[in-house]
Amino acid sequence: MSTAWTSRYALRTKGVTSSQIRELLKVTQRPGMISFAGGLPAPDVFPTERFQEACHKVLAEQGSAALQYGETEGYRPLRELIANNMARYGIKAQAENVLITSGSQQALDLIGKLFINAGDRVLLEAPTYLGALQAFNVYGAEYVSVPIDEDGLQTEQLEKRLRSGPKFMYILPNFQNPAGTTLSEGRRHELVLLADKYGIPIVEDDPYGQLRYEGEHLPPLVVLDRENLRRDAGYSIGNVIYLSTFSKTLAPGLRLGWIVAPPEIITKLAQLKQGADLHTSTFTQFVAYEVARDGFLDKHVKLIRKVYSERRDVMLEALQEFFPPTVTWTHPQGGLFLWVTLPRGLDIQTVFRSALEQNVAFVPGDSFYANDSRDNNTCEGCRHMRLNFSNAAPDKIREGIRRLAAAVKNHLPATTLPSELPLGV
Amino acid sequence: MSTAWTSRYALRTKGVTSSQIRELLKVTQRPGMISFAGGLPAPDVFPTERFQEACHKVLAEQGSAALQYGETEGYRPLRELIANNMARYGIKAQAENVLITSGSQQALDLIGKLFINAGDRVLLEAPTYLGALQAFNVYGAEYVSVPIDEDGLQTEQLEKRLRSGPKFMYILPNFQNPAGTTLSEGRRHELVLLADKYGIPIVEDDPYGQLRYEGEHLPPLVVLDRENLRRDAGYSIGNVIYLSTFSKTLAPGLRLGWIVAPPEIITKLAQLKQGADLHTSTFTQFVAYEVARDGFLDKHVKLIRKVYSERRDVMLEALQEFFPPTVTWTHPQGGLFLWVTLPRGLDIQTVFRSALEQNVAFVPGDSFYANDSRDNNTCEGCRHMRLNFSNAAPDKIREGIRRLAAAVKNHLPATTLPSELPLGV
Repeated sequence: MSTAWTSRYALRTKGVTSSQIRELLKVTQRPGMISFAGGLPAPDVFPTERFQEACHKVLAEQGSAALQYGETEGYRPLRELIANNMARYGIKAQAENVLITSGSQQALDLIGKLFINAGDRVLLEAPTYLGALQAFNVYGAEYVSVPIDEDGLQTEQLEKRLRSGPKFMYILPNFQNPAGTTLSEGRRHELVLLADKYGIPIVEDDPYGQLRYEGEHLPPLVVLDRENLRRDAGYSIGNVIYLSTFSKTLAPGLRLGWIVAPPEIITKLAQLKQGADLHTSTFTQFVAYEVARDGFLDKHVKLIRKVYSERRDVMLEALQEFFPPTVTWTHPQGGLFLWVTLPRGLDIQTVFRSALEQNVAFVPGDSFYANDSRDNNTCEGCRHMRLNFSNAAPDKIREGIRRLAAAVKNHLPATTLPSELPLGV
Repeated sequence: MSTAWTSRYALRTKGVTSSQIRELLKVTQRPGMISFAGGLPAPDVFPTERFQEACHKVLAEQGSAALQYGETEGYRPLRELIANNMARYGIKAQAENVLITSGSQQALDLIGKLFINAGDRVLLEAPTYLGALQAFNVYGAEYVSVPIDEDGLQTEQLEKRLRSGPKFMYILPNFQNPAGTTLSEGRRHELVLLADKYGIPIVEDDPYGQLRYEGEHLPPLVVLDRENLRRDAGYSIGNVIYLSTFSKTLAPGLRLGWIVAPPEIITKLAQLKQGADLHTSTFTQFVAYEVARDGFLDKHVKLIRKVYSERRDVMLEALQEFFPPTVTWTHPQGGLFLWVTLPRGLDIQTVFRSALEQNVAFVPGDSFYANDSRDNNTCEGCRHMRLNFSNAAPDKIREGIRRLAAAVKNHLPATTLPSELPLGV
């Protein structure tokens, strides 16, 4: 069907297509399917009773305000709660530094809107969060990618790429989506120093930082950036914009995220947010505040850590049990995902279709790579699968990995198959 | 404070400044202030108890789904409810034609993103909704304005402006924001015929359509467009994208609006929405569905009509009683606003400051005019005030209009003052 509208699309929407993940989520709702595809939190740990109490209290005591229009910057008590909460992770912010967004995804969209002109380069990890690519693509971003390893972004490869003059860097330091890797403390320092040296600012995306299951909390980039300021007044200040969310600690259905930035940037972003959706739902903000307050958020995060770390362990054990030794995977210290690397020669889309036939789903790795202009003919993600371990119950995880191993083995080159048999796989 | 960020703004944000209304809303929260400035619904008619029941039911029966990620297009039962509800106003839509947005404001942003390239013209009413200008400005829109009168857009002035090739028209047919005027039935037909003739599509923004206090419901443009299709297969089809919202019928704090369009356009908009915020809050969608269902929405709209029509009448009577005959105003048949025209020679900003001193607020009319490139040296809005009559209680409305009349009279040219006295003003 053609309409007067369909010949009128803006140039910027040329490269926009529906994400594979979004289409996937529809298939994975099929009965019997075990899905490691989405980034869904475990619904069984949603604090439903606490939400009941919070909704009741908000509507009984502040119904008029909670259902009315609100300020674009967000509900003040919630901004204060967020600032106080972050202080315990070393991030010194006031309510004025916090803009409430409709999920972190909106934070990425607003940042794209404020900073990206068509043709501007954004420096990214390879692989990186698909949703950031979707948000930035619309504004005509081009990309410069730096590969990651088990210690995150390979900072020794960073300097030469910074010389190409990216507008900013987009970095996920903790339990990265999709790879599950964490940027080491040494590399965090190097990254912040290089950012200062070249004057290239950083967007630090930290949706999972509180969900650490082992090891010590590492200082966020935004904190190291402030420490630089105290050490040497010659450094630029406010180099890092920090993003986080309640999606992984309370509930994604609220669509509540936030941006931490210098007040001048918050003002600009709020102006853009006003044009984008006036403000985030007052009701969900009031409810989230009532749910999170009085220490509940911390207590609840402890529960989530316990549940998710168990699920991670079950997945790691099942991978060990069912997969041949030619397949490797990351060992995430937190978060929701791990990253599986298959032997060379496998076609990930074929494996993917086999997996769906076996009623198990994952996201093929090629979704997570930006198309660097100079680097079009490799398919870096084609040997990888992103697996989510937060959503399915432990017995489903074990069964799902068993099915997935069967799907993979169907496509392994004949030479690798016999070598596994003596190992009892 | 300068940071590595502040020299990096995108070109598109140059013209973006905080709206006067947004800053105003902060001043108007001062105690003792009577504000006709915002477009706020009356909080005393929010159906708080029904929300209590809905939240309880949603969390008890569907907590896991309501707090989880959802589909970008929106919660299916809510899309169906909206489609069924609109059918009673003659709009034949299926759930597939409906995209749930984070308020109508997001609908405007997504439409700007999908259709506006920098320099594209958008044809608007003069005056028009400020939020549309904010949404479209970001994408580099330029404007062609057509003046309105008591019967809405002056269609006899439309044809010559359509020849300049605008990308689309943005029209508020019912109880327009800011002027409160309604596009007559004859002009609706003319508008749709001209849109077809020139192949210029229409965005029909209808947040207030159900809030009619007198006269007969008039057919939406999207309905007339479909009727054209049946009359003459030569016409283009799907020329009109229709927008509406629950902000004025349930509660603005939910941030729930929707777009009605052909499925192909819905798919494109959903792709952009995914990058912008993944989806609108699942929780507020589930709750709104439970609140609205089983005929409650219609029953509640009847209550709102009763309350708001009384307030409109109180405001009209007070204007008649307190203002001199040199001041005129529109007689809105519905909606939330009316539009006051002051005698020539008054400076609206001076009147505005006087009003704030008297503890009464309005929005100066100049906020509602696009800066047509060929038309920069007039200040069309400088004689006008937008007054909201939905938010304040009747006794406050009367007192506020008394104060406002006092503020205006302070600045009236001396010659007009004596003429009022014999009239008992």
